[in-house]
Amino acid sequence: MPASLPDVDPLIAQLAGAIAPVLTPETVIVGIHTGGVWVAERLHALLGCKQPLGMLDISFYRDDFSRIGLHPQVKPSNLPFDLEGRDIVLVDDVLHSGRTVRAAMNELFDYGRPSSIRLAVLVDRGNHELPIRPDFTGLTLDVPAHQNINLSRLDDGHLTLSLA
Amino acid sequence: MPASLPDVDPLIAQLAGAIAPVLTPETVIVGIHTGGVWVAERLHALLGCKQPLGMLDISFYRDDFSRIGLHPQVKPSNLPFDLEGRDIVLVDDVLHSGRTVRAAMNELFDYGRPSSIRLAVLVDRGNHELPIRPDFTGLTLDVPAHQNINLSRLDDGHLTLSLA
Repeated sequence: MPASLPDVDPLIAQLAGAIAPVLTPETVIVGIHTGGVWVAERLHALLGCKQPLGMLDISFYRDDFSRIGLHPQVKPSNLPFDLEGRDIVLVDDVLHSGRTVRAAMNELFDYGRPSSIRLAVLVDRGNHELPIRPDFTGLTLDVPAHQNINLSRLDDGHLTLSLA
Repeated sequence: MPASLPDVDPLIAQLAGAIAPVLTPETVIVGIHTGGVWVAERLHALLGCKQPLGMLDISFYRDDFSRIGLHPQVKPSNLPFDLEGRDIVLVDDVLHSGRTVRAAMNELFDYGRPSSIRLAVLVDRGNHELPIRPDFTGLTLDVPAHQNINLSRLDDGHLTLSLA
């Protein structure tokens, strides 16, 4: 476990470099609310993506929805394009159990049947509970189960990772 | 591309060896109809699994169900255990797009919220269309898109792989 976490900007630049070869003018980038959207916004700009940015809120699709109920600050998803036959780059900040990504895939399929979904994550912290793995990873980090790794956005828009 | 495909029995033995360390008395093995069930039956026996074997038919859960309709030979799923909080080893013969596994996960979650789902496949042929990857793989094989790789069961119960 490193004493300090790396800067986020170079990780996102590295992700963009890995995604660039598979990007076509029709590819859409979709971020998972909240941290995934922040990362997706950066990727969208760095890659000069021609399509509008998509945003997913998977609160209704979580497999523990019935247990935790609806969060008062749920934001609606925003997918301003037809997903049928589309290549999608799905973006999240941290991959852990994989349950969020499963929920996100289900929501995407409710809008249409994409041609492909590739997963880009800023941090893969392991301890997966489902057979879901990223196609593009900024940082692989072995975080103990009792710790959280969080992405924050400062007032100036700067993104930082922290352990808690 | 090898001129002949390897024997299936050693591949299944290798899968069993990889799965053994994570198996607990509560772990269940679930095969996806048809080929995945054949492989799962072998794994179940080799591993001396204490729980009954589970079988999934994902016909109703396929993302192209509305296009292809119901196959006349659909077999019902058989999951003779409570899936809530359970560790599952999900078994399929060939991993290709990942759509079958996504459908299988959705069916499993409709029965309960498992603690974990690990994926074991006899052959991973690549060309994934979803961010779904096996935890345990018998054979990784780069099969051209126009070819199919099939698992067959002979009258004597012997399993064989073939390209078509």
